Amino acid sequence: MAHKIGKQTLIIDGVVGIRSSAAVGSKKEGEGPLGKDFDIINDDSRFGEKTWEKAESKMQELACWKALKKAEAEMKDVDFIFAGDLLNQCIASAFSARGSKVPYIGLYGACSTFAEAVGLSAVFADSAAKNCLAVASSHFCSAERQYRFPLEYGGQRPPSAQWTATAAGAALVSKEEGFPFIKAVTFGTVEDFGINDQNNMGAAMAPAAAETLSQFFKDTYTDPEDYDLIVTGDLGFVGANLMKELMERKGFPLGENYNDCGLMLYDREKQQVESGASGCGCSASVLSGHVIPMLRDGMLKSVLALSTGALMSPTSVQQGETIPGIAHLVCFSSEKGGIF
Amino acid sequence: MAHKIGKQTLIIDGVVGIRSSAAVGSKKEGEGPLGKDFDIINDDSRFGEKTWEKAESKMQELACWKALKKAEAEMKDVDFIFAGDLLNQCIASAFSARGSKVPYIGLYGACSTFAEAVGLSAVFADSAAKNCLAVASSHFCSAERQYRFPLEYGGQRPPSAQWTATAAGAALVSKEEGFPFIKAVTFGTVEDFGINDQNNMGAAMAPAAAETLSQFFKDTYTDPEDYDLIVTGDLGFVGANLMKELMERKGFPLGENYNDCGLMLYDREKQQVESGASGCGCSASVLSGHVIPMLRDGMLKSVLALSTGALMSPTSVQQGETIPGIAHLVCFSSEKGGIF
Repeated sequence: MAHKIGKQTLIIDGVVGIRSSAAVGSKKEGEGPLGKDFDIINDDSRFGEKTWEKAESKMQELACWKALKKAEAEMKDVDFIFAGDLLNQCIASAFSARGSKVPYIGLYGACSTFAEAVGLSAVFADSAAKNCLAVASSHFCSAERQYRFPLEYGGQRPPSAQWTATAAGAALVSKEEGFPFIKAVTFGTVEDFGINDQNNMGAAMAPAAAETLSQFFKDTYTDPEDYDLIVTGDLGFVGANLMKELMERKGFPLGENYNDCGLMLYDREKQQVESGASGCGCSASVLSGHVIPMLRDGMLKSVLALSTGALMSPTSVQQGETIPGIAHLVCFSSEKGGIF
Repeated sequence: MAHKIGKQTLIIDGVVGIRSSAAVGSKKEGEGPLGKDFDIINDDSRFGEKTWEKAESKMQELACWKALKKAEAEMKDVDFIFAGDLLNQCIASAFSARGSKVPYIGLYGACSTFAEAVGLSAVFADSAAKNCLAVASSHFCSAERQYRFPLEYGGQRPPSAQWTATAAGAALVSKEEGFPFIKAVTFGTVEDFGINDQNNMGAAMAPAAAETLSQFFKDTYTDPEDYDLIVTGDLGFVGANLMKELMERKGFPLGENYNDCGLMLYDREKQQVESGASGCGCSASVLSGHVIPMLRDGMLKSVLALSTGALMSPTSVQQGETIPGIAHLVCFSSEKGGIF
């Protein structure tokens, strides 16, 4: 059973682990540095569907199907699905879960969704459930026309803009089974530092990431150097640099072991993604396809993974509101025993 | 610690209860049959804010503030906020939580959000948390222009249409404190019976409500007559009648103890709301302001409350998709001991 330590960190007391995970992407993701880590790459960004929204649902279905297949499990073995995406009314997730017959807990955490889903799955798998599926997705084309401009318009992108990943990630979080283990979860607070430039999401999210990460260190009496890797969701180049500065100011300077999924997914120079990748699918696919497998293979032993979200909408921006951010943290370890 | 029985019902093993709850509404809600049950009624549907979206955030803040005040608690006593609404990217909830400094778990369950939030709060309060705030809202004006037409257009409404409640509800769910008790939670599955008329949400949601409710009866070996009140979220006149028919077919006929929040909030004849009320705020306010207080006062002893959601978006409807529904159930009791 999970219990709270310090101000806001939950320690997962039981043996809860990632039984399997899978990442799905499209052409651009396949051409990036992590291309080979994806389980499924389809060069057709419509995934054979008629619309990008349906393609996004399809990516979620494929990610879940592949994760279950790797675990030699079936959908009927799953107790709960925790899922979310960026589309209005989260239709990618809802339509994807339609055929599952599994209790569905819909989330909205913007790009923080994957860590939110994995965190809730861990708390549930530590008490009321055996298997939980955590899944999140985003799609460049559906996001671009919903948040910015029609693709046909060919709008220019400033250097601080990020490229929404066309990707989905799914993780099967299980009790008494699975590896690596989930040792702790820190759900974040909504932080607003007055950023109002919707082409600079990294700057809007970095303060929330710094807040959650520093609170985790305070709650657990650990330091950045206690972890092999500390990885944020999609701060990108601008946001990741700001994150380092903020963490230094908070007394927890980040070293070479810090990275950002938004900087890992694409080759920023060759792939013209400006400040890096973004979207729920960014951290979902990088964690599911790259980081968790590295933990499984023993190349990493302890990882802090934060998915980071900007909680705005086109309407809130048009109404002159600033952009609040949020970040949820999951602590992975290859060691079964307590580390705190 | 919660544990699962049957296919999908979670039994809350510890003592978890509603420490306090509060409902906020506007003019039309104040004029309805439950007007006196609202803690706060503001005849100005903007609640002093510049936009309806900000008004909706304000309603959530007021509902939380009032619920905390009733419990003689403060925001710093709250471990987690579980919240959601109908607006794109759930901005009403995110902006409302901005000043709280409390870990925020954003949900999207359409009008099923309140039961989803209370259910998650109960699971958390049964393990990792002491106090959780469950909150949900909707606003007629922000919903109407987002989902249907600009208000100025004055679009005609068919008889199956429902009126989105301008309301918010908040419940403080606590461990070892509070009354009535939460005995069980059944998170629902996404059900799609092929309804594609977005002016007939009741019909889209009724199959999901019937599925969750009948599954709860099967999981717990109880019957409709074992409860003083069985109440659905916002099926309205059309959906509630369909619900009765579906439950009869499933072998669990509903009697006089069945009602629907969407039929309780307004006077359908005098207030011109066609099939009844809808919106996350409907079940949130009717449960928080009316049903839970009746349990507290001893007028009800055992209640099954289901919030019901239609998981569509204007985009999915335009793309020819049908409308999936979902329903989450919370079982309240005034008895401390086990009832299953």
